[in-house]
Amino acid sequence: MEKQEMLFAKLKELGIPTVTKEHKQCFTAEDVESVAEECGLQPASGRCKNMFLKSKKGDLFCFTTQSASKIDMKLLSKKLGAPECRFAGDEYLASVLQVIKGSVTPFAAINDTENKCTFAIDKDLMKEQTLWLHPLHNDKSTSISADNLVKFLEAVGHPPKILDFSDAEASSSDAAAKPKQAGGADKKAAKGEGQKDVQKETLLSITAKKEEDFANWYSEVITRSDMIDYYDISGCYILKPWSFSIWEQIQTFLDGEIKKLGVQGCYFPMFVSQKALEAEKDHIEGFSPEVAWVTKSGQSELENPIAVRPTSETIMYPAFAKWIRSHRDLPLKLNQWCNVVRWEFKNPTPFIRTREFLWQEGHTAHSSLESAATEVLDILDLYRRVYEELLAVPVVKGKKTETEKFAGGFYTTTVEAFIPATARGIQGATSHNLGQNFGKMFKIEYEDEKGSKQIPWQNSWGMTTRTIGVMVMIHADNQGLVLPPRVAPVQVIVIPVVYKDSAAELNSKAEELVESLRAAGIRVDIDTRSNYTAGWKYNHWEQKGVPIRLELGPKDLEKKQVRMVRRLDNSKEDVPLSVIVPKLKLELELIQHKMLQRAKDEHSTRTRTVMKWEEFVPALDAGCMALTPFCDEAEWEETAKKRSKEEKLSAGETEDERTAVSAAAKTLCIPFDQPDLPAGTPCFISGKPAKCWVLWGRTY
Amino acid sequence: MEKQEMLFAKLKELGIPTVTKEHKQCFTAEDVESVAEECGLQPASGRCKNMFLKSKKGDLFCFTTQSASKIDMKLLSKKLGAPECRFAGDEYLASVLQVIKGSVTPFAAINDTENKCTFAIDKDLMKEQTLWLHPLHNDKSTSISADNLVKFLEAVGHPPKILDFSDAEASSSDAAAKPKQAGGADKKAAKGEGQKDVQKETLLSITAKKEEDFANWYSEVITRSDMIDYYDISGCYILKPWSFSIWEQIQTFLDGEIKKLGVQGCYFPMFVSQKALEAEKDHIEGFSPEVAWVTKSGQSELENPIAVRPTSETIMYPAFAKWIRSHRDLPLKLNQWCNVVRWEFKNPTPFIRTREFLWQEGHTAHSSLESAATEVLDILDLYRRVYEELLAVPVVKGKKTETEKFAGGFYTTTVEAFIPATARGIQGATSHNLGQNFGKMFKIEYEDEKGSKQIPWQNSWGMTTRTIGVMVMIHADNQGLVLPPRVAPVQVIVIPVVYKDSAAELNSKAEELVESLRAAGIRVDIDTRSNYTAGWKYNHWEQKGVPIRLELGPKDLEKKQVRMVRRLDNSKEDVPLSVIVPKLKLELELIQHKMLQRAKDEHSTRTRTVMKWEEFVPALDAGCMALTPFCDEAEWEETAKKRSKEEKLSAGETEDERTAVSAAAKTLCIPFDQPDLPAGTPCFISGKPAKCWVLWGRTY
Repeated sequence: MEKQEMLFAKLKELGIPTVTKEHKQCFTAEDVESVAEECGLQPASGRCKNMFLKSKKGDLFCFTTQSASKIDMKLLSKKLGAPECRFAGDEYLASVLQVIKGSVTPFAAINDTENKCTFAIDKDLMKEQTLWLHPLHNDKSTSISADNLVKFLEAVGHPPKILDFSDAEASSSDAAAKPKQAGGADKKAAKGEGQKDVQKETLLSITAKKEEDFANWYSEVITRSDMIDYYDISGCYILKPWSFSIWEQIQTFLDGEIKKLGVQGCYFPMFVSQKALEAEKDHIEGFSPEVAWVTKSGQSELENPIAVRPTSETIMYPAFAKWIRSHRDLPLKLNQWCNVVRWEFKNPTPFIRTREFLWQEGHTAHSSLESAATEVLDILDLYRRVYEELLAVPVVKGKKTETEKFAGGFYTTTVEAFIPATARGIQGATSHNLGQNFGKMFKIEYEDEKGSKQIPWQNSWGMTTRTIGVMVMIHADNQGLVLPPRVAPVQVIVIPVVYKDSAAELNSKAEELVESLRAAGIRVDIDTRSNYTAGWKYNHWEQKGVPIRLELGPKDLEKKQVRMVRRLDNSKEDVPLSVIVPKLKLELELIQHKMLQRAKDEHSTRTRTVMKWEEFVPALDAGCMALTPFCDEAEWEETAKKRSKEEKLSAGETEDERTAVSAAAKTLCIPFDQPDLPAGTPCFISGKPAKCWVLWGRTY
Repeated sequence: MEKQEMLFAKLKELGIPTVTKEHKQCFTAEDVESVAEECGLQPASGRCKNMFLKSKKGDLFCFTTQSASKIDMKLLSKKLGAPECRFAGDEYLASVLQVIKGSVTPFAAINDTENKCTFAIDKDLMKEQTLWLHPLHNDKSTSISADNLVKFLEAVGHPPKILDFSDAEASSSDAAAKPKQAGGADKKAAKGEGQKDVQKETLLSITAKKEEDFANWYSEVITRSDMIDYYDISGCYILKPWSFSIWEQIQTFLDGEIKKLGVQGCYFPMFVSQKALEAEKDHIEGFSPEVAWVTKSGQSELENPIAVRPTSETIMYPAFAKWIRSHRDLPLKLNQWCNVVRWEFKNPTPFIRTREFLWQEGHTAHSSLESAATEVLDILDLYRRVYEELLAVPVVKGKKTETEKFAGGFYTTTVEAFIPATARGIQGATSHNLGQNFGKMFKIEYEDEKGSKQIPWQNSWGMTTRTIGVMVMIHADNQGLVLPPRVAPVQVIVIPVVYKDSAAELNSKAEELVESLRAAGIRVDIDTRSNYTAGWKYNHWEQKGVPIRLELGPKDLEKKQVRMVRRLDNSKEDVPLSVIVPKLKLELELIQHKMLQRAKDEHSTRTRTVMKWEEFVPALDAGCMALTPFCDEAEWEETAKKRSKEEKLSAGETEDERTAVSAAAKTLCIPFDQPDLPAGTPCFISGKPAKCWVLWGRTY
């Protein structure tokens, strides 16, 4: 509040008249609209949107425009004279402008004493007598004329750039270059009638484009669809019911299948002593930089710090050593569903790379390598089924190279997915054969049938909430989420399209429809809210990715039909109510099938066979994975990694810190499905005889 | 190893001849038996059991006797001249004898340089030329004659007491006074034939008695039944599949029921910033001494320490403040299944009081007090159903007094259970109405139908893995666990009683039986292990609490019947195979019913109506809860607590640190089911007019 008092004192000192209104905290443009009504923030043209941006070079900008404007980021970057501007991270908000998210306005210039941020204003705003801006905190709005805003900015050492977009419409022919289309989606939205309060009908559509600004697009998709909310500890996110129920679907399927394999549920402590954690050298080297340590309880220092599990090998295997005595105690097959913590310093991404995440971790011990090896593949195939059968995401099954395998293990198998929009490979889930290494370290021994001591063969395998992120990145589009029917929390949304006086009857018929679908085992919901138009609801449920929408209006009722709209391709069809149940069941299966097929097609066009080094980086740059004959030597793997990075960087590109991906290509896996490799085929990089085909890609 | 070398050097210095054999680590008497065979630790009479004890006054003893001896703790205490000896905690092992669990022997006297421990030896051992004792570590055994052991103990400053039990048989008439009955249970066990290696047939029965040494009895029951294993961080335990599957049964039931109430699943981060944690003053006062703090990741100090959730109010409600804007956003009903951490310093007890535990926590917000209050009771009734319908544990529903309610809440409702064996009340699960207090603190506001701002009414409610501990404490007996059929991981165990040459046919018939039961939806398992006798198996599955055992021998097969044995009362019945499925289904239901009924009967005999103070402590001392007319004033509640403790302590009793219970009586709840309270009935302690009946008890 002190800073706010300084701001008001400054405005007073400059003789600038202002009016300040208090209201609830505003985080979204929707909030602003609702508050604007309430507090009379008039005129509407004076309501502002403020964008806090960072260019690729690292320069910071605050751009202010009308709240209804739609901004094309490419064009804005051009006008600012700074390449590839994107929304700046929250850390800059705090450190440079010293305001929280949702509170950025040009008033924050007063806090930027080191002049790190450039302020810019849309020329269209310059005619306004009253602009409404949060005075450093989003629970108030303060009026100021455009001229006085410039005066203020000059006084605090931040004379603004005035950006003119009037030439923009004509500047380019493609759609993306149209910089401003106020409320495009809303205009298209059908207006309901017979409703009292329709002021909230504006549903903002997703502003970032998947193909242009993937990171912001992703962030918008997962927040607008109510999957995720952000949290005040970096790298930790809230899984809202819309995403958590997908996890529940995955759990139900996977837990059922692993129990069929004789795996039992259990729960081991989350904490691990330093001594146990460090028992296996390679393993701890792999994890120690990311381990979170509890050192205090209440006000007291703990005698010995304890670690929060990054994975549970070192927690479980001392117990295995106690439990396993005889060959009759094998196989031992345990699994737990739990949270784990890896305090990574790479840029976090919800679902994909988070400091706390949910997973299942299976840990098993076998009397023979064969038994362990079979299970490794059985589990890997379950992971493939989760991706392909539930999430409609194609994956490549394979083995990791020595370089990329699990720290301390014998070999690692993996399902690898690929995100076409970013041209990045991503590890889907891994199933490890740990060999006898952990057994040796943790002194796990059993007596075999002949009475001699043996070390069991162990596996560990895990699948995480990352699955959900991969599904979003592959299927969602510029309208929002697109959910595969098998995991969609709501498979069918029924929207009664009510007109004057018809509401009661229509809603009751729609409820009947819903009941019949629910009885048939379809996950169905109905949206009878009277304060939103049908059009708003269409957009809303599209953003949430519901596979099928059923629109039911008076005319449909007359004709005993319902309008069915598929989220996947927006195709529409009138369906007689008499066959709606079988039709929907069929459609849900078809959509599931189509989604996988479409993703598979894309996946295969993005896999390029590369025989020599010269084709390697160009293949990556063309957005592909490269499948190469490879000598499978660690030094050459490192060389490929290094060279691919150098070539990329020397071409003037920089590492993208926001998306946490690097320019270097890594091996994704040695696919199980190996094409022919005629004897003597040279390795694509070393020229030595190739040992196998290897799949490479830039990665998350 | 250094210490072991010192020991061997000492023995050498004293001219004591020894032989040392290496073997796998031994933790149980069973381990010792198996190792003894393997390494030839002969004679059997020289194999020792070592008991590390602590008297009520705090004196430590190490008592060594034959491994086959059964020891009556009362008598042993008397012989040692130290009242109420019990097994000493692991912390003394480490600090005084400097050995790990399972490695205590008189050799550890060499480490007790401060002479804190008294060593004692059973006189029966004194005739042995060869005693086998672990030389400070349980992966070796060292032979020493009894005389030389005494010589060694004298040399290291610990001349032993020699205890003579030869008079014991005659010393008392009750069974408990028979100090030594080698292998009683085993002798009764039917011996199988036609089996090669029967040396492991000795299954040790549970040595502590529920009615005499509850804490050790409980520990033995939960470890022998494979529910729990201990862990090297105090207060953290491993939930093995045998207990975890009970938790899964509870989850399936409860999650299904709360989803029917419209509650959605979600997951919030485990970590909470200091600022959020401390937002509600009373709440943080209640939890802060028990909060675990993460202050480091890898080698780096975190800028701001973060807490591990003790409960999630302060994690969820900032998000509620963002999500709840309009009356249409209400009710908001969320639930998560997760782990929480409360770093308590009271003595931990598996399931009952642990530093990390599993639970579900529901958090809901409502537009009216009525809606919130209704849900509080709906949830409480689900908790009652988990206890009564699943776990066969009777509970009393009621409201907590102001003193005992949830920190920061409006009122707390509870289901209270009672453990007859310890005469202690125990809180089963709680459902809180939080009122509007958290709403105010976290600025949760919504606009009602009329457009004015309101604070929602909130609830939170949770049920933990404590449920399992309560079930064990109530139903288990001196043979081990007794599981209610509805939650038993295995409801029916089939044991083929094989004789020479009959094994193959019998096992195959038994497998057929198992398949038919499984197909009928009965959770059934079969024990065809050839290295254990039928008798060993009977004991084994009794210890694990399986409700029904089916014994199938050649004669049964001839008569087309099976012998059915009920765990609950050991009653037996021959059942024609033709009706086995309906018979078992009926029996499982009957057993479930009987278990609840039996527990209810006990519960009501342990509830005593107390009208005046003079009857209060006597009622508690008689092992009862007291139902009293009460003025419901906090000062008088405190007075009752204080006085009940004083009276108890002045009677010469001390607080029992091992069981973590106190002598003071607390209010358990104000039962919903209130007897008549005629106007003017005086409060049992203050004499003021009573407001209600209150249930009191000593508690966990």
